[in-house]
Amino acid sequence: MKAYWQYKFPGNIFFGKESLNELERIYQKYEQKKTLIITDQGIKASGILQKLEEKLTRYAIPYEVYDEAKPEPTNSDVEEVLAQYLDKEVYVVIGLGGGSCIDLAKMVSFMLKTKQPLAYFYNNPIDFEVTPIIAIPTTSGTGSEVTGVAVVNDIDKHLKVGISSEKIKPQFAILDPLLTMGMPPRVTACSGIDALVHAVEAFTAKDFSSFPEDYVADFRGATMMSNMFAEKAIRLITENLVEAVTNGQNYEARHQMLLGSLLAGLAFSNAGTSMAHAAAYAIAGRAPSPHGEITGLMLPYAIKYNFSSNLSKFMELHRICVKESKGLDKNSEIFDYFIELLEQINLPTKLQQLGIVREDLPAMAKETMGITRLMNINPRQMDEKDLLTVFEMAFD
Amino acid sequence: MKAYWQYKFPGNIFFGKESLNELERIYQKYEQKKTLIITDQGIKASGILQKLEEKLTRYAIPYEVYDEAKPEPTNSDVEEVLAQYLDKEVYVVIGLGGGSCIDLAKMVSFMLKTKQPLAYFYNNPIDFEVTPIIAIPTTSGTGSEVTGVAVVNDIDKHLKVGISSEKIKPQFAILDPLLTMGMPPRVTACSGIDALVHAVEAFTAKDFSSFPEDYVADFRGATMMSNMFAEKAIRLITENLVEAVTNGQNYEARHQMLLGSLLAGLAFSNAGTSMAHAAAYAIAGRAPSPHGEITGLMLPYAIKYNFSSNLSKFMELHRICVKESKGLDKNSEIFDYFIELLEQINLPTKLQQLGIVREDLPAMAKETMGITRLMNINPRQMDEKDLLTVFEMAFD
Repeated sequence: MKAYWQYKFPGNIFFGKESLNELERIYQKYEQKKTLIITDQGIKASGILQKLEEKLTRYAIPYEVYDEAKPEPTNSDVEEVLAQYLDKEVYVVIGLGGGSCIDLAKMVSFMLKTKQPLAYFYNNPIDFEVTPIIAIPTTSGTGSEVTGVAVVNDIDKHLKVGISSEKIKPQFAILDPLLTMGMPPRVTACSGIDALVHAVEAFTAKDFSSFPEDYVADFRGATMMSNMFAEKAIRLITENLVEAVTNGQNYEARHQMLLGSLLAGLAFSNAGTSMAHAAAYAIAGRAPSPHGEITGLMLPYAIKYNFSSNLSKFMELHRICVKESKGLDKNSEIFDYFIELLEQINLPTKLQQLGIVREDLPAMAKETMGITRLMNINPRQMDEKDLLTVFEMAFD
Repeated sequence: MKAYWQYKFPGNIFFGKESLNELERIYQKYEQKKTLIITDQGIKASGILQKLEEKLTRYAIPYEVYDEAKPEPTNSDVEEVLAQYLDKEVYVVIGLGGGSCIDLAKMVSFMLKTKQPLAYFYNNPIDFEVTPIIAIPTTSGTGSEVTGVAVVNDIDKHLKVGISSEKIKPQFAILDPLLTMGMPPRVTACSGIDALVHAVEAFTAKDFSSFPEDYVADFRGATMMSNMFAEKAIRLITENLVEAVTNGQNYEARHQMLLGSLLAGLAFSNAGTSMAHAAAYAIAGRAPSPHGEITGLMLPYAIKYNFSSNLSKFMELHRICVKESKGLDKNSEIFDYFIELLEQINLPTKLQQLGIVREDLPAMAKETMGITRLMNINPRQMDEKDLLTVFEMAFD
């Protein structure tokens, strides 16, 4: 059993209103400043890209823009960016947008510095210096700005892979709540609930000390450090998510949501996430839903199933979230709390609503069991049959 | 006024019993492994050095030992180490001991890689890669294992300077409470109270938002992040310091003290410390006391003077520390609490006890005002006359 824990921290974080201004000082550190901004059409249309471009122009930073990032970047997306910018002498990569833009920026940052194909890094470490990354999230959800993970959807190998390395942890994360003000309600809901699932799954994760001494992994279970971040994140997100969805112009709610998402990132990037995230892979293969819609839907069922396996943590979660007891048992009350939260922000609560068919549940259970790096973190030991029980509970 | 904050995190932390075992995996990352251990005679006599040497031998890591580190390293100490090891092809530096050993290791780490004299870096940045540093604290106090600061006592220029750079932040900090078990009561008291002063001064620091927008400094005032670390540190240290001093074989108390010291380091390395630490420079110039004895002594008086300037934070500090109210005003109660804490761990509570003479107080006030990077952080605006008032209060 492990007697000690490890914590990996991000680089430099700037948090707050107008923190985008910090770019001027950040660029003083770079001798070569030529920058590639990686973003998407939504960010371009919202005017946020223009805001960044104005700053870079004011600070005399030469830049190029790739604004064709798509949700869940593929290996061919990476190749497309490289084909366009490999010979453009890029020295800094900015990921501007949600997790997909930041993940794509991470992959570009190291692919600019190697002749190996992307797939080589599915199983091999990145052992060279990468192009520095500045992450500027525009949603409050993924936490990708503080993690060393980039998820790629390999369309040739039909694989979704997380490339993980300290090298691709952004050197700077700039979190400016003003950039999240324009998020539409549905994006706010999906990204915000995903951040909450990060926080709850990190908080209730299996304790680090229950892993064998030689267990080495990106996700290593709960520690006092992840608990501290996760608890604060749960408070901030549960207190502000509904307001941020229904009244997106409330700066304070946006500020607290972005802070909650950051803290959730600091927590789960070390502790890990578990069943709800593991299940998301199998579900996403069958339903074209946003990631947060899926993980958010699975959360109440995961909690219900796991409750008794980490009683002290789930009781604490109950104290944090459930302000008024209805006199039910604590497990039911917390289940109801999360179902009601989903309903309040107009997210589905049943797999059926996503277009999943009952016949697929057994295969989904089998696939989910295969995501061992997350299932290892789940507080309750599970087999395929248990997972099928949870999927059936969540179905209709 | 600042609308956003910055946070700088340390590298990799390993915390807990037997975390020294992690050295085997850490060294897998280094192609060249030849190591210089920097430590002192106390650590050698205690058997801790031998414990480290056994690990390195078992893992086939070649190493040299410099075991002549002294409290408060000087420029000539740095030169002495360089003279002995510059041509020994050192690729990794381990700082094993209290803050002085770790600070000396930090200075050696970059001086091995430059032809400039040490004093050059008092005013110039370290803009090259340094020898990687592994910090292994054996006291629960300085937090140096997670900061990018090394304090040098320049005996030629009669200056105490903090060399500050992200480059000299240890790549790995290994915090094994077992290594702190042998600390004598007095060392436990002095290092432990210093960690508490770090935490309290970070917690009650002027808020980041009260600094001008272009304020750039290592110490940048309180943020929600530093508050979170500092509050937890205050709880851990106040609940365990007396026990650790009086019953050093209590592993749990040692564990919590080291954790508290780490969290205090994470807090003050960003938020900063203030009056008690600023005053320590002038006091140390006149009294040969350990650093913690001085900062610990000044803390109650600093709190008493600052109380009204950051009322919400000091009231929170009162709630955290003072379990039983005596019906006095809150300021007096918290003052009494810290005085009693000092008495319980056999530390002085009056400057006179250190050998300071009353005639020196005006000069000490003047010198303390000169430590602007710390006095800027103090919650209450002060001038020389105010400082003299505080010194007089603390005198007898």
